[in-house]
Amino acid sequence: MATDRRNAILEGAARVIARRGVRGLRMEELATETGGSTALTYYHFKDRAGVLRHTLEFISDRADRYTSVAGDPGGRPDPRQELEQSLLLEFQDLPEVRGNSTTWGELRASAVFEPELRGDLARATLTWIHDVADLLGGIRPTAPAPALTASAERLTGLLEGLSTRRLSGALPLPHARELVKEAVTLELDRLSR
Amino acid sequence: MATDRRNAILEGAARVIARRGVRGLRMEELATETGGSTALTYYHFKDRAGVLRHTLEFISDRADRYTSVAGDPGGRPDPRQELEQSLLLEFQDLPEVRGNSTTWGELRASAVFEPELRGDLARATLTWIHDVADLLGGIRPTAPAPALTASAERLTGLLEGLSTRRLSGALPLPHARELVKEAVTLELDRLSR
Repeated sequence: MATDRRNAILEGAARVIARRGVRGLRMEELATETGGSTALTYYHFKDRAGVLRHTLEFISDRADRYTSVAGDPGGRPDPRQELEQSLLLEFQDLPEVRGNSTTWGELRASAVFEPELRGDLARATLTWIHDVADLLGGIRPTAPAPALTASAERLTGLLEGLSTRRLSGALPLPHARELVKEAVTLELDRLSR
Repeated sequence: MATDRRNAILEGAARVIARRGVRGLRMEELATETGGSTALTYYHFKDRAGVLRHTLEFISDRADRYTSVAGDPGGRPDPRQELEQSLLLEFQDLPEVRGNSTTWGELRASAVFEPELRGDLARATLTWIHDVADLLGGIRPTAPAPALTASAERLTGLLEGLSTRRLSGALPLPHARELVKEAVTLELDRLSR
């Protein structure tokens, strides 16, 4: 099926990027990696930039899946717990999560040099900020929208900064989690004032 | 003079990395860019990893220069002002600063894939955290050392995250500055409790 083929190519692209970086992604190798032809890869995604853009979408969807938290059976999840878990699940020592973080960080870093990636990346970032602002608003319903957005921008920005630090071996995972937890507390304190 | 030659090579390396990324840096092109020979470049830095490591040191020193704030004439600088300016000078629209931020972000992102960069990068990060913790300690002299370090880790981590966002066109400069200023306020509030 065409959808299966597309997904297999995007999964392969995410894997190659996590292993060797965006600059290590060649269309020929991607075809080999996913057991298809280069022509088919071009057919599905037009060009290399098309692959990169759809890989970004693919890993964003995957991150949504592993950061979404199951509610209490028969009840709604506690909003604070949902927020913390959604931010902290990024810092897990699971191969899928690590691969996803690596790919996201690489696409972000590459966008500095490959302007055609920027639009999609900016949109994905806005969606992420919006989701976190929503979770913050669930905990602090009287806080004004611009303050919620600013807190969400800081929390997601901090997460990206610490994530690259962690992936380059400069920050142990438990300490990264501590720093994020405390940042959540600081932002929530501010929003209750 | 050998030192001039070394500096010219490192300046050229920083320029090439800011323009095309670490993966765009070839020893042959670097020699051409700086008007020297490949043999001389190898003589000064042993190998490509040596160039990258020394470029990191070179841009760290340069960042120290442009983030150091002149005191009041005849007086000591105000510690809060010194802290804010040291963090915010990273977010200036000057070619040198932008180039430096781009090079630093690229070396950090590359260290995920090039482990031989990690040791030097981790050391440079620790020095930076230590300097920011010192500035925070000057404003909150009774705050315990681990709290000062944690605040410095968050502020520098946020700065790295927002810097990559900004360089990939997803965050306007004045807004980045607002977010950092507010983060400084939040951390200082916490340290006074």
